[in-house]
Amino acid sequence: MNKIKNKNTNKKRVGIIGSGPSGLAQLRAFEAAKNAGLEVPEVVCFEKQSNWGGMWNYSWRTGVGKYGEPIHGSMYKYLWSNGPKECLEFSDYSFDEHFKKPISSYPPRPVLFDYIQGRIKKNNVRDYIRFDTTVRWVNFNDETQKFEMVLDDLKIDKTYTEEFDYLVVASGHFSTPNMPYFKGIEQFPGQVMHAHDFRGADPYKDQNLLIIGSSYSAEDIGVQCYKHGAKSVTLSYRSNPIGVNWPEGISEVPLLTHFENDVAHFKDGTSGKYDAVIMCTGYQHKFPFLPDELRLKTKNNLYPNHLYKGVFFNNLPQLIYLGMQDQYYTFNMFDAQAWVARDFMMDQLPLPSKAERRLDMDKWLEANDKLETSFDHVDFQSDYIKDLLALSDYPDFNVDKVAEMFKEWLKDKDENILTYRDKTFQSVVTGTKAETHHTEWMDELDDSKERYLFQ
Amino acid sequence: MNKIKNKNTNKKRVGIIGSGPSGLAQLRAFEAAKNAGLEVPEVVCFEKQSNWGGMWNYSWRTGVGKYGEPIHGSMYKYLWSNGPKECLEFSDYSFDEHFKKPISSYPPRPVLFDYIQGRIKKNNVRDYIRFDTTVRWVNFNDETQKFEMVLDDLKIDKTYTEEFDYLVVASGHFSTPNMPYFKGIEQFPGQVMHAHDFRGADPYKDQNLLIIGSSYSAEDIGVQCYKHGAKSVTLSYRSNPIGVNWPEGISEVPLLTHFENDVAHFKDGTSGKYDAVIMCTGYQHKFPFLPDELRLKTKNNLYPNHLYKGVFFNNLPQLIYLGMQDQYYTFNMFDAQAWVARDFMMDQLPLPSKAERRLDMDKWLEANDKLETSFDHVDFQSDYIKDLLALSDYPDFNVDKVAEMFKEWLKDKDENILTYRDKTFQSVVTGTKAETHHTEWMDELDDSKERYLFQ
Ligand SMILES: Cc1cc2nc3c(=O)[nH]c(=O)nc-3n(C[C@H](O)[C@H](O)[C@H](O)COP(=O)(O)OP(=O)(O)OC[C@H]3O[C@@H](n4cnc5c(N)ncnc54)[C@H](O)[C@@H]3O)c2cc1C
Ligand SMILES: Cc1cc2nc3c(=O)[nH]c(=O)nc-3n(C[C@H](O)[C@H](O)[C@H](O)COP(=O)(O)OP(=O)(O)OC[C@H]3O[C@@H](n4cnc5c(N)ncnc54)[C@H](O)[C@@H]3O)c2cc1C
Ligand SMILES: NC(=O)c1ccc[n+]([C@@H]2O[C@H](COP(=O)([O-])OP(=O)(O)OC[C@H]3O[C@@H](n4cnc5c(N)ncnc54)[C@H](OP(=O)(O)O)[C@@H]3O)[C@@H](O)[C@H]2O)c1
Ligand SMILES: NC(=O)c1ccc[n+]([C@@H]2O[C@H](COP(=O)([O-])OP(=O)(O)OC[C@H]3O[C@@H](n4cnc5c(N)ncnc54)[C@H](OP(=O)(O)O)[C@@H]3O)[C@@H](O)[C@H]2O)c1
Repeated sequence: MNKIKNKNTNKKRVGIIGSGPSGLAQLRAFEAAKNAGLEVPEVVCFEKQSNWGGMWNYSWRTGVGKYGEPIHGSMYKYLWSNGPKECLEFSDYSFDEHFKKPISSYPPRPVLFDYIQGRIKKNNVRDYIRFDTTVRWVNFNDETQKFEMVLDDLKIDKTYTEEFDYLVVASGHFSTPNMPYFKGIEQFPGQVMHAHDFRGADPYKDQNLLIIGSSYSAEDIGVQCYKHGAKSVTLSYRSNPIGVNWPEGISEVPLLTHFENDVAHFKDGTSGKYDAVIMCTGYQHKFPFLPDELRLKTKNNLYPNHLYKGVFFNNLPQLIYLGMQDQYYTFNMFDAQAWVARDFMMDQLPLPSKAERRLDMDKWLEANDKLETSFDHVDFQSDYIKDLLALSDYPDFNVDKVAEMFKEWLKDKDENILTYRDKTFQSVVTGTKAETHHTEWMDELDDSKERYLFQ
Repeated sequence: MNKIKNKNTNKKRVGIIGSGPSGLAQLRAFEAAKNAGLEVPEVVCFEKQSNWGGMWNYSWRTGVGKYGEPIHGSMYKYLWSNGPKECLEFSDYSFDEHFKKPISSYPPRPVLFDYIQGRIKKNNVRDYIRFDTTVRWVNFNDETQKFEMVLDDLKIDKTYTEEFDYLVVASGHFSTPNMPYFKGIEQFPGQVMHAHDFRGADPYKDQNLLIIGSSYSAEDIGVQCYKHGAKSVTLSYRSNPIGVNWPEGISEVPLLTHFENDVAHFKDGTSGKYDAVIMCTGYQHKFPFLPDELRLKTKNNLYPNHLYKGVFFNNLPQLIYLGMQDQYYTFNMFDAQAWVARDFMMDQLPLPSKAERRLDMDKWLEANDKLETSFDHVDFQSDYIKDLLALSDYPDFNVDKVAEMFKEWLKDKDENILTYRDKTFQSVVTGTKAETHHTEWMDELDDSKERYLFQ
């Protein structure tokens, strides 16, 4: 019952977990090499959902999916890009190439999902992906130096094992909620949920909503609910308030201490009565399919320890993690990582010794520790991207220009959290200046691609 | 990285997955043998929650728990026993022994949870349980004939492997939602959830609620929400309506065909506008930690195929499943199963050949196929219990009398779904007649043990 299918081939085998933007970047990187005439390893990507796109593949479901697997998606109706699209543009596939016309800087989810798919639909990337397949367990065999992966084909309820020389973990890290306990919460009569299960603002119309957290989810879910008719939104922060100019109806208070029935008490002695609670308290890096010695154990930060160049697991560099950083940069960072990882897997990029890698990581960790402002964070991740770009042939782009746009974006949000998505930026890939969207974001209640593109 | 801890002992090792009523019954069965002076195998029970009690260990959480594991619990505030407690009484630990006084026939969840714990607190059963430990993966080694279990200690984020001669799967089957898709549901603006995530009726006050399904969850969640102030409750059935005398405010309609925004359309051409949808559409038997050839693949029914005596996996009888049947009988059935399983594991109960076991199962399956009414179902499961009781020294109880009580209960529900929990029954273990609860169920909004026992 523990037989392993052995492929009759001398080709190295690469297993990829997940076909979100990171996994797709890895597939695309290999396709690019193949198109350039190089011999590439045999690549198989395992995806537990029925479609690619990862987080961008919206699901109305919460809890578990059709086959009883935990739902991956944390996105919701009316979700718009929260950063300028010019900061995440693929440098080998521009927005212009995809949409054939300029579009605005902050598209809604379906439009970005469409863009992600455009690049890979041009190739036969879909053939490499086994959908509805959960990676259940991975064993690294010290003798054979291979990863033995236990795969679970959900559609036919069948498990099987295959061996791989390299393992690319691209399973995301915004799916497993971190949900703290607050005294009295068992007795809170209203709905209590994590942002992961939030699917749209409509149920909160005319309600008094309490949101815990002060990062992107708190900010965006708060503003969405305000936009779609919540009576009031209260944001409760642990470390720092978001601190922008909130409109009337949204306010920030210190951390919740406890509930007394439907009343929440806060650290500053104030209290309020709420209809529902949404915990925007972040996510856990969770890799239930890996033995713990291969697990990346980290909080959400810009430089998770033990990953050389942010991707190679230092104890076993055949184990590669993509996209595990906290993210200013997204799609273009995953690309830069995937190209470097590809070159290593194709023996084009030798790695220094373990000790040297350790030193390199320490240097980055030290710099990370010194960061103070959001601007510092942007600069740090920009430096990281530049470091990666120098290592592969992923098309260069003007990282400094992108960093500037990020800073502009931070200022825009500070100035007016309700209108920052009406701003436009200029592409570093094509030079194209974004269009102004036909409707101001606060008045736009329809997030469909059809309305976005054609009305 | 794939080393296995080997115990220096000649004792056989039994691994139990889950410390709900079934897993606890298994532990109790071994304790009983030990107390009788017999030598028992080394037993380890793995429980992913921080406490025992399985489904009865209520959690305010939905989605995932503290450590990111799917939440097991499907119970909710204000959940009362939905059958007479006299039908589930342990025959070796009566309600009288535990509560020292007669109580009513339909206690709330905390009271039954207390009762379950009473029996095992008398022994050192807790020492056998490794809490906060998820069984991640099991491999059956054909050569050694042992189960290699991959365990994940959630508290310290550490995985390890141990070997067992017997594996008892007592992981329950009312935790992984079955959630069908209905056209248009993506656009339904209100909350959509499965009964698994329902935590109490309060959020549905003054709302128009649509419930899909026509079994226990549909009935009980519907009645709860009505009791706690929902404006209206509509139950939509697939095969058969529940068909009891509903009070004004609750109604039954045929199956939903599709949604148009917040309007649901039904098969009979009617439609209605709803604030929220709760799918009471049952659960999947899901064993993600087992290779598929060891998985019990079944729907929720009274006699899952491939389980000899309802417990021994016919292809590999060292693999034992407890409590996998649809349940009229619960705690006492798990006991009867666990005692039989124990005797097999202690070499006290030889099994017939595989072919003979097959014939026996076929006989039961054939009988199962012929069942028509609920009374037939009760008789069938009663026969099954009697068959089990004959095989071990689990204290006999008057099964025919219990079957009668089940039929009484079915009639009571038919007569008045709002008052059936005010009825009382007589114990077959002690002969005690239940007390009438101090408050009629419809007027009782507090389900705490304190109020139940002492007011
Ligand atoms: C609410 C929310 C909003 C966001 N908005 C933006 C935004 O506006 N702009 C932006 O740039 N970024 C945004 N992000 C960040 C987003 O995470 C990234 O854009 C991107 O999706 C990360 O890609 P990924 O491939 O690393 O991970 P994911 O997109 O999470 O994909 C991981 C994939 O792995 C699969 N998988 C996981 N486990 C297994 C397994 N065991 N077996 C098989 N398959 C598995 C999953 O099904 C999934 O398809 C947002 C994130 C969240 C949570
Ligand atoms: C909403 C609801 C109401 C109910 N009400 C009643 C009632 O009124 N009366 C009644 O008699 N019965 C009721 N039941 C039936 C109930 O299922 C049984 O009473 C009983 O809990 C079944 O016991 P079990 O031990 O088989 O499973 P469970 O109680 O489900 O326990 C299984 C245990 O296994 C653990 N587990 C699962 N997977 C793993 C893993 N991989 N690793 C480690 N541990 C794991 C779980 O954490 C859990 O503790 C109800 C069920 C539901 C869903
Ligand atoms: N497109 C969009 O509009 C959109 C919307 C939502 C999310 N996203 C993306 O989703 C990703 C995740 O963002 P996120 O906001 O969910 O997670 P996050 O950025 O990791 O932030 C987690 C938040 O939870 C707080 N927190 C953690 N534990 C807490 C506790 N015990 N008590 C109180 N507060 C606690 C943290 O507070 P401290 O500061 O005190 O640590 C922080 O504010 C990001 O990449 C983001 O860009 C995008
Ligand atoms: N103590 C309590 O008060 C209480 C409360 C709730 C539950 N429980 C217990 O919990 C357990 C589970 O009960 P349950 O009601 O959740 O599950 P269940 O008894 O398995 O019933 C499942 C229901 O879902 C319906 N269904 C399944 N698939 C469907 C589909 N695609 N479309 C429409 N309907 C569909 C079924 O209809 P068909 O008839 O057409 O198949 C059936 O009505 C039981 O043991 C019960 O006793 C107890």
